[in-house]
This record gives sequence, C-alpha cells and structure tokens, in this order.
Amino acid sequence: MRATSRAGTIEYAIRDVMVPASKLEKKGIELLKLNIGDPNKFDFKTPQHILDAVCRSLENVDMGYTPSEGFPELREEILNYEKKKNGIDASSEDIIVTNGVSEAINMLFGASLQENDNVLLPDPCYSTYSSMAKYYGAVPVEYKTIEEDDWVCDIDSIRKNIDENTKCLVLINPNNPTGALIPKKEVKEVVDICGEHDIFLISDEIYDKLTFGSEFYSPVSCSKDVPVVLLNGFSKLYLVPGWRVGYIGFHDPEGKINEIEEAVKKMARMRLCPNAPCQMACHAALTGSQDHVKELVSKLKVRRDFAYKRINEIDGLETRKPEGAFYIFPKITHPAWTDDKKFVLDVLHNSHVLFVHGSGFSTDVGNMHFRSVFLPPVDMMDKAFSKVEDYLRSVKA
Amino acid sequence: MRATSRAGTIEYAIRDVMVPASKLEKKGIELLKLNIGDPNKFDFKTPQHILDAVCRSLENVDMGYTPSEGFPELREEILNYEKKKNGIDASSEDIIVTNGVSEAINMLFGASLQENDNVLLPDPCYSTYSSMAKYYGAVPVEYKTIEEDDWVCDIDSIRKNIDENTKCLVLINPNNPTGALIPKKEVKEVVDICGEHDIFLISDEIYDKLTFGSEFYSPVSCSKDVPVVLLNGFSKLYLVPGWRVGYIGFHDPEGKINEIEEAVKKMARMRLCPNAPCQMACHAALTGSQDHVKELVSKLKVRRDFAYKRINEIDGLETRKPEGAFYIFPKITHPAWTDDKKFVLDVLHNSHVLFVHGSGFSTDVGNMHFRSVFLPPVDMMDKAFSKVEDYLRSVKA
Repeated sequence: MRATSRAGTIEYAIRDVMVPASKLEKKGIELLKLNIGDPNKFDFKTPQHILDAVCRSLENVDMGYTPSEGFPELREEILNYEKKKNGIDASSEDIIVTNGVSEAINMLFGASLQENDNVLLPDPCYSTYSSMAKYYGAVPVEYKTIEEDDWVCDIDSIRKNIDENTKCLVLINPNNPTGALIPKKEVKEVVDICGEHDIFLISDEIYDKLTFGSEFYSPVSCSKDVPVVLLNGFSKLYLVPGWRVGYIGFHDPEGKINEIEEAVKKMARMRLCPNAPCQMACHAALTGSQDHVKELVSKLKVRRDFAYKRINEIDGLETRKPEGAFYIFPKITHPAWTDDKKFVLDVLHNSHVLFVHGSGFSTDVGNMHFRSVFLPPVDMMDKAFSKVEDYLRSVKA
Repeated sequence: MRATSRAGTIEYAIRDVMVPASKLEKKGIELLKLNIGDPNKFDFKTPQHILDAVCRSLENVDMGYTPSEGFPELREEILNYEKKKNGIDASSEDIIVTNGVSEAINMLFGASLQENDNVLLPDPCYSTYSSMAKYYGAVPVEYKTIEEDDWVCDIDSIRKNIDENTKCLVLINPNNPTGALIPKKEVKEVVDICGEHDIFLISDEIYDKLTFGSEFYSPVSCSKDVPVVLLNGFSKLYLVPGWRVGYIGFHDPEGKINEIEEAVKKMARMRLCPNAPCQMACHAALTGSQDHVKELVSKLKVRRDFAYKRINEIDGLETRKPEGAFYIFPKITHPAWTDDKKFVLDVLHNSHVLFVHGSGFSTDVGNMHFRSVFLPPVDMMDKAFSKVEDYLRSVKA
C-alpha cells in the first residue's frame, strides 16, 4: 500500500542528515553537530523564572484543554508585546497560539494555498516553507537573494517572479539559513510590491531580537493596507524550542484576509489546543524579567564574530557576516567539490562535524554552500572548524 | 483574498457550538457545558505524581527539541505498554509520539489518502476523521452502526461500502460519540474484511481502558497480516488532555504499509517534535502507579448509570447504555423537533445546557440525536437534565 505523492514532496534536510550521522554515533564516534538550531543543546539554558512558571501552572490551571486559539491572557500579552515592537493593528482575537511556527506554516498554507497557486519564497529559505507549499499542491517560486550584498533580497527578482497565480510572499527576517537582516528600505519596498499586486505578506520574525548591529524592522510597522501575517514564537528568544509554542498575528487593517484567518481558526479548533502548562509559562516569559536577552545576544555576537573570522581563514571556504539569528552560510570554493551534499557527507565522515547542505534550502543561489550554527562555545567551534580545515587541506583538487 | 476550498471542508461541531454559547456567557448567563470530553473541567484531577514528573523533567532534560518521533525512552515504554495489552508486533521504531490523536489523524491521512481515495468511517464518528479526509481531497464513506444493538458496527454495511477506491477503515472503539464497545467477534470480522480487501485498519483506542463491563479487545490482538495503525494517547486515561501527547503504533507484521509509516515520520520531522517536558511526564505516567485508573472508571460508571437512567425518564428522549468512554448519545423523540441542531440550540437558549448535535457526527443514523458527556458529578447532571426535562415538557408538539 503506497504513501501519497503529497508526502513525497516533504524534504527536511536539517533532520535528514541525521540519518547518516546516527549511524556513525552508533559506532561510538563522537560528532560535533552544527546542524540544528537548538541553543539548549549547548550552553544556553532556559531562564529559571520561566521554568518555575511551568511548575506554578500545574497548580493554578487544570491540565484540560485550553481554548483552541490559546489562553486568552496569553493572546492578550502577545498582542501587547507585538504592539510595543511594531505597532501591529490587531486585536487579541487576531492572535492564534500554535505548536511552534511549524504548525503555523502548515495551517496558514492549508488555509490559503490552492493547487497551482504560487507562493514567493526567498532563495535560500527554511525548507518547511517549500515543503508545505508543495504538500498542498501549490508552487513555491523562489526570488533571489544576493550573497555579495550579505544576502539581501533581490527586489528585481521579486518583481520578475510575481504573476497572476501568486497568492503571497514570505519574508524570513533575520533569514534562516543565511542570517541576513533585511534593511528597512527593502522591507518597505517588499510591502509596496505586495500592495501593488494585491497579495499578502508572511513575515517570519522568529529571530527578530537576535541581531548584532542594525535593528530589525517589521513590515507590520509600515503596512497600512497590505495584510501581513506575522509568525513568531518563544523557542529561540526564551530558550524553549522543545515546548513548541509559537503564534500567528493577523495584521490586516482592511480585513482583506478575514476568510483566511477564519479558516486558520477552524483548523486550530480541529486540533483542540496547544500545550496548556507551557502556554502559561510563556505568559510568564513575556511578563517577567527580560534580562537574559542581553546576555544571549552578546554571547551570540562573540560566537558570530569568531565563526565569521575562523571560516574565512579556511582555504576552500568563504562567508558573509550574518547580522541576525544564529546561522552562517559559507560558500564552498574548494575545487575538489561540485556538490554540496557530497561535501557535507564527506566532512561528516572525515571530520566528524555535521553541517546541512545548502541545496537543502535552495535550488539555485544557495547551492555549493552549507549552513552551520554558531551556537557552541568558541573553543568547541574552533575544534570543529580546525578539523574541517585539516580535512580540506588534505584533499587534492 | 479567499481561503481554500480545502479549509471549507473542516467542521468541528463540538467546538462550533461554543460560538453561540460564548455569546450567552458574555451576557453573564451560566451554562452547564456537557459538550466537551474534558474530564479536567469537572472533578477529575491529574494524579500528583504525574504533575511532579513535569517539574522533575525541567531539571533532568534540557528544554530543547526532542527527537521528532519522541524521546526514545518514551517510545520504548509505550511499546511495552501496548505489547502487554494487545501483543502488538512492532519495535519502538514503529511508535511515533504526536501532538494528541488529532495530529496523528492529520499525519496519517496526509500520508495515506490521495484525492478520491475512500476511507470507511463509522456512522456516527468523531468528526475530525471525516473533516481531515475531505481536507485531503479523499472521500469519507460511512458504514452504519446499529442503535438497537447498542451501536455495534453493521458488518453488512461495511461489506457493501468497500470498493476498489477504499484505502482504509477506521474503528473507534469505544466509540465517540456513542460509547459503543465493539465485541471481540465483530472486531475479528472487521480485521478479516480488511484482509480480504487488502486495506489497512486504523484503530482509535483512546478510550480503551474506560469500559464498564465487558473488556476492550484490540484488532491488533488478532491481526496476523492485516496492517493495523493503532492510535492512542495520554489525555483521557491520565487526565492530561491539555498536554496534547498521543501516539501512533504501526502493527504491520508483513511491512505492507512501510511506505506510509516512513511518510508519517517525514511529516513528524518537519514539525520538529512534540512537547518535551510533557513527554517526560508521560513516561512517568506509564511507569508509575496506575491506582487512579480504578477510581476513574468506577466514578465514571456511577455517572454513566445515572445519565442512562435519568435521560430515559425524560419524555421526548431515549438512549442506549454506553459501555465505554464518557459519552452518551440519546435519540430525540420529542415531536416538536425535526432538526437536531435546532434542538441543541433551543436547549442551549432555554435550559442553558450545552450538548452537541448528532448531525455533527453523522450524515445518517446519528441524526436526531445529541451527544452529552457524563463527566460531571451526579447532582450537576441531575440539575442539567431536569432543566432539559422541564423545557421539553413546556414545548408543545
């Protein structure tokens, strides 16, 4: 009995490289895993007051279902938080708590993408977007980003790729996998283009507070009539990726995508609710001390600086400097490789360091690249990159 | 901008009746809500040792992502538990932890149902099955169950409705919304039919331990070669519906649905993982004391007995006795109504008691019925049913 062709469209390179890696681990080989964006696997810990809030919630609320869209007090607090950041024009009814941004993408695409609709995605792009679009029979169309300009969006490429089948455009800002931070001017241009073509904008802002120089700017802040669906969550900023609490915010001043918002709510109802105790703790995360954020960002900045410098010292690799998130996306210039997946597997087997191949995020400009996290402490990264350097030196062109 | 036709297929009567109910509550009217199967909203509490395990997990595991299919130790323990119950022929690799059974249905249908495939569902049926089938462009085909025989499956109706497009058959046992427990003989017949027609069986066993006389019998126990996909979870038995931890077990001795299992795993990877701390606590739930189960079942039995007796005393209603779960599904015989949804809304507005209309679960034999939970204490149910009785008496035919 066969699986569906729909399921055949799913690719998730980040976890797929774990299959060969696990085989090595089963042989007792220790790997340096730089493939998954999980700070808690290194020396980042959930702030204690947020953990305490989980325990408190076990006494304060029953462990029954919550409202499908999330606890009202959490939705209210998310709205306040987003309003302060970007002035979102919405009510708490327009906030929907989800099982991470992953579920948010699934619901939103299920609600908005008919077969053969196009969705404009950055190239490179977090692969769940293209997989989910194909899962629903829609067509992911990639607009280029420009490596030489630190991976900013190519506005011409966006214009060229919009057509009458385009339903929406996705911005991931800061970007996964490149770490690019999109400048305000470009964000405004993208909003204008969406307005001209009557499409809505999906703004994935999960890394919005993890920036190392310039400040993040949300399309919500400049959109007067273009519907912006904001995606964000608690995983990265509050160091709780395993809780799976994210949210959708509908900024839609003219109600143009009301029908899509209602459809998302129906989907939310069918899956009953997000995790109850962690929802309560996320409320505590928003209302409590934010002191850990400064430390988190400054630790990441040191590691970003190191990864950028160290990778550029390696013959056969070169990289731009990421301005946000915790990913770096080097180019493979070593003449021995013409295939990035082969490069990643060769490095895995020879250096015991695990990256993700760029073609897992891209069909074009991201090829012959790889994604590394810069989450580990400097000495651990130094060890990993030195092993890679030794290996690359040993390989003849 | 329009929502998809796909999203238009979703109906979830259980939560949809909350919309008019919430309007009444906003006016300050207190409702007796018998619509949602959430024991924790009444006098059922999560056992303390399971709650303690959540707090312990915050110290013992990081709050990062878990493996997509769930913590290995939890999968192992689920396997042991299921093996003891029904002798499932599987390894822990065949167990996948999900965000409740709801997500399990979504993944399984996404992985197995192509457009125009048929899936055989009981009538009446938990509505997520038919909604998700339609969501994926498949066709839910209902086989009848027989009210006069306490809602057992009509085997002839199953045979009549299988055709070359049938991909799988769903058993919900004990059934939601009727509370029917399917006898061993019938379960075996259903397995045989699936074998004859080379289709796989989905066995929703979420209420398997909540029975009041006869024992539950799983199709897994008698299937030698028919693939059975078992769905179960922690919500009901361990009183943690708000945690959203369920699981899928693939009993597939001949590997006939390997491809579907692999597709489900790919979907699991894309959504990263289920909730980390609650997964750990569910491990503690399986390995710790089961003392609460006896009390849970005996409390439910008293309430089942009361609901059955009390509803049958009301002129205009009659009901069979449920043998499992915590639902009762009375027939509306009062001559004033010809529409069950109107009945439910009239009762809501006049008696301030909230049920779910039978047609929310059925296109045929469940019409002119409604679903009530029998979770509340007897005095609360008595109050509710007395209000309904008074109202029905006051209405002329």
